[in-house]
Amino acid sequence: MSDHGSHHSHSTSPENQAPARTLDAHTERYARRTAGMTASEIRALFAVASRPEVVSLAGGMPNLAALPLESLSGEIARLIAEDGQAALQYGSAQGVGQLREQICEIMELEGISAHSDDVMVTVGSQMAMDLVTRIFVDPGDVVLAEGPTFVGALGSFTAYQADVVHVDMDDDGMQPEALRQTIDEVHRQGKRIKFLYTIPNFHNPAGVTLAVERRSEILEICASNGILVLEDNPYGLLGFDGQTYPSLRSQDPDNVVYLGSFSKTFASGLRVGWVLAPHAVRERLVLAAESATLCPPTLNQMIVSRYLSTHDWKGQIKVFREQYRERRDAMLGALEQHMPAGSDWTHPEGGFYVWFTAPEGIDTKEMLPRAVNQRVAYASGTGFYADGFGNRQMRLSFCYPTPERIREGVRRLANTVTDELDLVRTFGPTGKRPATGPQTPSPDTA
Amino acid sequence: MSDHGSHHSHSTSPENQAPARTLDAHTERYARRTAGMTASEIRALFAVASRPEVVSLAGGMPNLAALPLESLSGEIARLIAEDGQAALQYGSAQGVGQLREQICEIMELEGISAHSDDVMVTVGSQMAMDLVTRIFVDPGDVVLAEGPTFVGALGSFTAYQADVVHVDMDDDGMQPEALRQTIDEVHRQGKRIKFLYTIPNFHNPAGVTLAVERRSEILEICASNGILVLEDNPYGLLGFDGQTYPSLRSQDPDNVVYLGSFSKTFASGLRVGWVLAPHAVRERLVLAAESATLCPPTLNQMIVSRYLSTHDWKGQIKVFREQYRERRDAMLGALEQHMPAGSDWTHPEGGFYVWFTAPEGIDTKEMLPRAVNQRVAYASGTGFYADGFGNRQMRLSFCYPTPERIREGVRRLANTVTDELDLVRTFGPTGKRPATGPQTPSPDTA
Repeated sequence: MSDHGSHHSHSTSPENQAPARTLDAHTERYARRTAGMTASEIRALFAVASRPEVVSLAGGMPNLAALPLESLSGEIARLIAEDGQAALQYGSAQGVGQLREQICEIMELEGISAHSDDVMVTVGSQMAMDLVTRIFVDPGDVVLAEGPTFVGALGSFTAYQADVVHVDMDDDGMQPEALRQTIDEVHRQGKRIKFLYTIPNFHNPAGVTLAVERRSEILEICASNGILVLEDNPYGLLGFDGQTYPSLRSQDPDNVVYLGSFSKTFASGLRVGWVLAPHAVRERLVLAAESATLCPPTLNQMIVSRYLSTHDWKGQIKVFREQYRERRDAMLGALEQHMPAGSDWTHPEGGFYVWFTAPEGIDTKEMLPRAVNQRVAYASGTGFYADGFGNRQMRLSFCYPTPERIREGVRRLANTVTDELDLVRTFGPTGKRPATGPQTPSPDTA
Repeated sequence: MSDHGSHHSHSTSPENQAPARTLDAHTERYARRTAGMTASEIRALFAVASRPEVVSLAGGMPNLAALPLESLSGEIARLIAEDGQAALQYGSAQGVGQLREQICEIMELEGISAHSDDVMVTVGSQMAMDLVTRIFVDPGDVVLAEGPTFVGALGSFTAYQADVVHVDMDDDGMQPEALRQTIDEVHRQGKRIKFLYTIPNFHNPAGVTLAVERRSEILEICASNGILVLEDNPYGLLGFDGQTYPSLRSQDPDNVVYLGSFSKTFASGLRVGWVLAPHAVRERLVLAAESATLCPPTLNQMIVSRYLSTHDWKGQIKVFREQYRERRDAMLGALEQHMPAGSDWTHPEGGFYVWFTAPEGIDTKEMLPRAVNQRVAYASGTGFYADGFGNRQMRLSFCYPTPERIREGVRRLANTVTDELDLVRTFGPTGKRPATGPQTPSPDTA
């Protein structure tokens, strides 16, 4: 990942990312910001990946099989029967007070001391990302983000016409020296940096964790350059040995906006996340939230609140962690066993993802249809960069399939990569082979 | 309402609308669009209105007391127990397919023929409004809207730096001739109109309905001027005699984006609304939704879908209608009985609201603290205009309090208005009285 800068020329052609062309009478009416709205490569993949014969290593769906559905069912029934008129009614844009207090208790696990008045509940972390970008970013403002970074964050940033600039990472997460250089470079270009977006723990998609000794250095670089930090931490409690790290927010409360979520530790389909922000920022976020959704769903907040107070939620997280560790082990073992020389991958100690680099000459986006023919799917790397980098990379998710399916999927993927390498050795790199027909159907139609 | 233009000079001072000032280290960092984000007057009122001794005629909370909570409780319990792994998991950004088909059946009641693929589920209509504005409006683009209009819509429009221009209404809704004149005027100023936002049925806050014979004329004016129509219809099935009107969408499918909601016909706290749009527009809306919330909550969509297929939802709407009719009657009767000469109000045939115009010389925003002292609250009129008009008006909601409380609330309000009139006759209009101290505390602190 650290040689990011040298690969910019490998960008894929933009027309591959454009939505399907439709006769559109409204073409002349759209806002300028829609130019940046393209179908994410991951979204297109969901259609393919949902076919049962395909082992999907593409999506980021948590494994909910371990949830106590019977007992949840009873708890939610009681909630509706006893408190349905509140649960089904409008609430405040900031969110249910009791839940915000419980959120503060959860954040204490990672060293955060906060008041519930500085917390706002959102419709998943995605909405928090959208609103933070909304209140800070004017078109052309720069947002710094790790390269690679979460594809949903890129969606929010480009929706507000931010100019995303990546910062290089290595196995210890973002490199402070790379951050300094990137800031200097952006400032030399006369551009304004609004914030640094970072996923310090069990990174999506890179699978690495920011070393503890780098954290204060990165905070210091941002503070001294007047750059706000947006810390996204959905996986922090999913360290496979139960380890947690001091959050950035705990070290610089005034210059960090923190995002949390129940999507990975409880239930993604409830869409309950949160943002913790300095008080004046939180006030603006509430105003922005009112115009975005009026208020988050009351029922969902009350369900999470009840779950936290009636269930052993820490024990449940431990169950999740152990499942994900077993799946991570299955994936790393299979990669070691099957992948050809020249491949490389990260070794996550938590979270959902391995970041895989294919041998020289392979273009993971071009290879995807052939992988799907072999009944395995992944998320190709370019979707995780704003600048077309990532064509040798892919994200492999171990969160959803069983260990057995993971091993089978990696075996199929290794066969695909090996076949592809043969093609590369015979005909040259796939990205540079002359096109002689529809060789790269979109994943939707493959 | 038709003499709107002559009252522009009565605008209230902007500092009354600004959020509380806080020491904010981030002041220099905010995006330009945050300048338009101010605390809505209605939001500030919720704090006051929630005090039990105050009769609140301010909020728009539906009366959920009539919902069959016991049976809903059982149905939701079965949903979680039988289908919890789907209900608690991520879904598609467009929404659950079965619900989108049921939504098409509902829209048929108002003459709409649509395919479920052109429907997207949203986190309440508010989110649909936000996303439509997001994909169409560049800063400075004009959005036309009835004057007065829904305060939440104004929030979305100003969040994207739209320039809102009002179109006059009368007892039959928007005036076609006023629409023509407004369009000409805006075009003369060299500005671009992106869409007309309209609430044709049982208008919030005006309480009037667009006459059927005006509908095709308004569609024709918009089409011939290249202006998209955004039809917001949360109250269409709440006509007190069960009457419905042909939706604008049914008459011009290619140039109307239609918004619907379950907030008023089922349960607002689930935050389930929808948008029906021409196909290419719908595609862009889904991309915008992905970056806004990833997907709407799956559980909430499945609850609504189950409710529609297992409960007599049409019968439930009839129950709601009859309750609201009784409350409307209570309000109109009390207004007739108690209000002083010079007052005027609309006579809604459905929905939640009466739009009240106070006698000459009264400023409803200035009067509000005195009304709260009399233990009654309302939404003052200026919040429903983008341009400061509405200082003689207020919105009175009859949806939530019981008929008895409504009668008591109107009696208190009439006393307040009568006292205020005495002050006006003695000292002149309140808006022009010299300030001698903190005479207009914000409702939050009153």
